Amino acid sequence: MTDVLLRGGRPWGHEAPADILVRDGRIDRVAPGIDAPAAATYDIAGQLVLPGLVEAHCHLDKTLYGGPWIPHSADDTLAGRIGNDLGRRAELGVPSVERISALLGRMSAYGTTHVRTHTDIDPEVGLRGVEAVGEAAAGSPLDVRQVAFPQHGVLSNPGTAELLEEALKSGVEAIGGIDPAGGDRDPVRHLDLIFGLAERYGTHLDIHLHDGGSLGGWELELITERTKALGLGGRVAVSHAYALGELDAAAQDRLVRGFAEAGVALVTGAVYSYPIPPVKKARAAGVTVACGHDGIRDLWGPYGSGDMLERAMHLAYRSTFRRDEDIELALEAATYGGARVLGIDAYGLDPGHRADLVVVPVGGAAEAVVVHPARTLVMKDGSVLHN
Amino acid sequence: MTDVLLRGGRPWGHEAPADILVRDGRIDRVAPGIDAPAAATYDIAGQLVLPGLVEAHCHLDKTLYGGPWIPHSADDTLAGRIGNDLGRRAELGVPSVERISALLGRMSAYGTTHVRTHTDIDPEVGLRGVEAVGEAAAGSPLDVRQVAFPQHGVLSNPGTAELLEEALKSGVEAIGGIDPAGGDRDPVRHLDLIFGLAERYGTHLDIHLHDGGSLGGWELELITERTKALGLGGRVAVSHAYALGELDAAAQDRLVRGFAEAGVALVTGAVYSYPIPPVKKARAAGVTVACGHDGIRDLWGPYGSGDMLERAMHLAYRSTFRRDEDIELALEAATYGGARVLGIDAYGLDPGHRADLVVVPVGGAAEAVVVHPARTLVMKDGSVLHN
Repeated sequence: MTDVLLRGGRPWGHEAPADILVRDGRIDRVAPGIDAPAAATYDIAGQLVLPGLVEAHCHLDKTLYGGPWIPHSADDTLAGRIGNDLGRRAELGVPSVERISALLGRMSAYGTTHVRTHTDIDPEVGLRGVEAVGEAAAGSPLDVRQVAFPQHGVLSNPGTAELLEEALKSGVEAIGGIDPAGGDRDPVRHLDLIFGLAERYGTHLDIHLHDGGSLGGWELELITERTKALGLGGRVAVSHAYALGELDAAAQDRLVRGFAEAGVALVTGAVYSYPIPPVKKARAAGVTVACGHDGIRDLWGPYGSGDMLERAMHLAYRSTFRRDEDIELALEAATYGGARVLGIDAYGLDPGHRADLVVVPVGGAAEAVVVHPARTLVMKDGSVLHN
Repeated sequence: MTDVLLRGGRPWGHEAPADILVRDGRIDRVAPGIDAPAAATYDIAGQLVLPGLVEAHCHLDKTLYGGPWIPHSADDTLAGRIGNDLGRRAELGVPSVERISALLGRMSAYGTTHVRTHTDIDPEVGLRGVEAVGEAAAGSPLDVRQVAFPQHGVLSNPGTAELLEEALKSGVEAIGGIDPAGGDRDPVRHLDLIFGLAERYGTHLDIHLHDGGSLGGWELELITERTKALGLGGRVAVSHAYALGELDAAAQDRLVRGFAEAGVALVTGAVYSYPIPPVKKARAAGVTVACGHDGIRDLWGPYGSGDMLERAMHLAYRSTFRRDEDIELALEAATYGGARVLGIDAYGLDPGHRADLVVVPVGGAAEAVVVHPARTLVMKDGSVLHN
């Protein structure tokens, strides 16, 4: 008997309060007044129950989380931040299994159950980041999936393409890309290379796109065309996509229609003051939108808590979402949207779904985002991680 | 004997850890190893000590804080929000002494010791907001200062000017204004009226300016000119000043030079996705910058916690401040900058200053902003409010 009964909660999206019976790591029943013996019963009357939060874009390998405060030491340019990152990571012991483990522990206390993390791959660090994240993930109950990420370019950084392929051979779940035009200077070869790897290894693809304005918009077209031509719909995501937030409404409309047709998803964290993709418009067009922190306490910047409800607040706030149904779009990005991007099966709050649950002491979903209070209970695969 | 001794903290801006001896509501001594009898001693070894946080722009009279979650019910237009506010405040019992008191209680737990709040004045609500805030403030240890605020226009809302003057006669500390051009349609008469009242009653002046671009920029010039001509430097602030965040660098440079010469301060909360004044540039020019939440859980929007360290995080984050010394500019806005705008005397962390203190369990100021953890101790006028 390992059944767990959560009594009296309000499962998000269900019309009425209901008990949730968990058996063998799955949700067995969701109904009011379940009368079943259980090894453990938790009274969560009136509290919101969400499916496990999904961190769809972070950089675990870079984190300094859990260590002493490290003052940011780069200048205000992108080149400065790149140089700072490359120059100081060895000095600070990055990547660090200890730091990554500390952050994963914090994330789980906040109710995150699934993580997609972009791990640096370059000739200097090799696959050490992939190994460190893998080691930390092996010691964590969370479902951690890595993107082999060419932070410092693919074409412009010889040896990287081979390492990306090596990472995929070693079992990394996705291949990354970054600014094919503005960064790597040859968008066609860059995209052909990473789409080719995604196709060959049957992996997901998640491309960092900071390039703005019409250049970034054009790259989004290239990505959409390739996704469609190769039939990779549902496996391709664009992270950040600042351009989409900058373009006019007509261009946004055209691009999101293309994403919806091709099956290209968007991942955003509403970071700093950078432009945010139009979440409401994208969702209305049927585009999957996911959410993630980007860096958390690392050489790129000191911010980030690991709390996906707080991150959803940033997304809702920066999107100027005030009404409950709008704010819930941000929560959807931090849950169901992320689950679709990562390809998590049996995700949700109905019988048969994995018992990945988080209980929040509020009455509703918008309030959970705005207030993001400490979690009452976190469950992964039916095991209570925090209570 | 009512002396209080804080032992081993790190007073912000002091070079070394020091004990702080508090006597008769003032800081008596700041030095290492103070050997003095005290009625109470608190060991705060290694923790950061800040002067009391200053909330320089909020709307206490509108708050629904502490009550049940009220879903936002306005459409996405400014007119919709104004109509929603006017239409629903009576139904929801706004202004409410109980709600205002609940929010003041929360603010004090976060270490806020001084508050400037813009209280709606219009023919419908009359001075009921001023009275409600006054009553809640009388029951709170916090120093609460009101701005008589013509939310719904002065010239365009007959009867408001007379009520503003009545509020000033009743002892309200400042006169407000709002979008003299874009809102009230006659910037010269609007500004002449409110500057005239400020001069006549010897009060502060704090003008909401949402008008953007070159229109808002021109209004900033009008405000600067009047401040200089009337010798009101140090008593005039512009809140929001979105235009300043939108204009090009040359226009920003010219305007902030004018503010510095005339003694016009800026107040910003980095709200939603609205433009933020260039904080670093303004401070470099010698302009006082303060920080505040704007609305907290009200009919204008559901966000806001009352935590000024969290609000400083928003300001630093949206300003893309990553280095400690930049992040500290946001903390300065939430402390010393606010104190200058409100005209608080004897504010700071040296002997003779009021013992308005907040202790944060972190090692430094930038970390306090980024992490904004629960406060260890809050003191107002030498009395420990939270510990």
